[in-house]
Amino acid sequence: METIFKPIGYIRHNKTKVPKHWTVSDLEGELVINEEYLPGIRDIKIGQRIVVLFHFHKSDTFKEEYLIQNPPHHKGERSVFSICSPLRPNPIGMSILDVLDKEDCLLKVKGIDMYDNTPVFDIKPYTEL
Amino acid sequence: METIFKPIGYIRHNKTKVPKHWTVSDLEGELVINEEYLPGIRDIKIGQRIVVLFHFHKSDTFKEEYLIQNPPHHKGERSVFSICSPLRPNPIGMSILDVLDKEDCLLKVKGIDMYDNTPVFDIKPYTEL
Repeated sequence: METIFKPIGYIRHNKTKVPKHWTVSDLEGELVINEEYLPGIRDIKIGQRIVVLFHFHKSDTFKEEYLIQNPPHHKGERSVFSICSPLRPNPIGMSILDVLDKEDCLLKVKGIDMYDNTPVFDIKPYTEL
Repeated sequence: METIFKPIGYIRHNKTKVPKHWTVSDLEGELVINEEYLPGIRDIKIGQRIVVLFHFHKSDTFKEEYLIQNPPHHKGERSVFSICSPLRPNPIGMSILDVLDKEDCLLKVKGIDMYDNTPVFDIKPYTEL
């Protein structure tokens, strides 16, 4: 059973290199929402934390050999569901970003670890554990 | 630009009603991994917390009227990207589950808020903020 997803917006910034993970990122940029989904961000507040699901759109098609990987920031091999590698069976990324500002269809966000132009699938409220 | 995803496994339990959110759920069940992805869970440890991305497979096709909703557990209307409603432009759910046990292609998990038979797209390590 396959499911088709299409972006609700995309990430925009002017860096070519990005931090390895949102937990260590100060990178600021914009989450640009497609006009048709604009009412959907009405209740997002400045200062809030959001969960952003996005497409690892630059990743190779997944192959069996990627089930075990040698991630650059760990020692030794790790199985794919224990790491944040963009090489995954379904290349969906998840980052938690801070909302710094909001204007029309733009959310100014901090903590970016996605490339410029990364398609975004979903935004969810962040829940503290 | 559309992207096609297909499940890596599914959620299995024997309840017809499920808690409203993983933060208030004690429901236990199994995450059954498709055989082809089995090596991918090698490094998941008992006692660990995992992020599970899944398909809200029972949701209606998204319509413009769902951009603002009246969620059952909130007072008043909320815009879709500020709530966890299964009615979303891309019906991807995210829950954080505890791994209680592991055997072959089965992860016994706790904290379930998905229906029995829910397709799972991804498992990620949980990162404390």
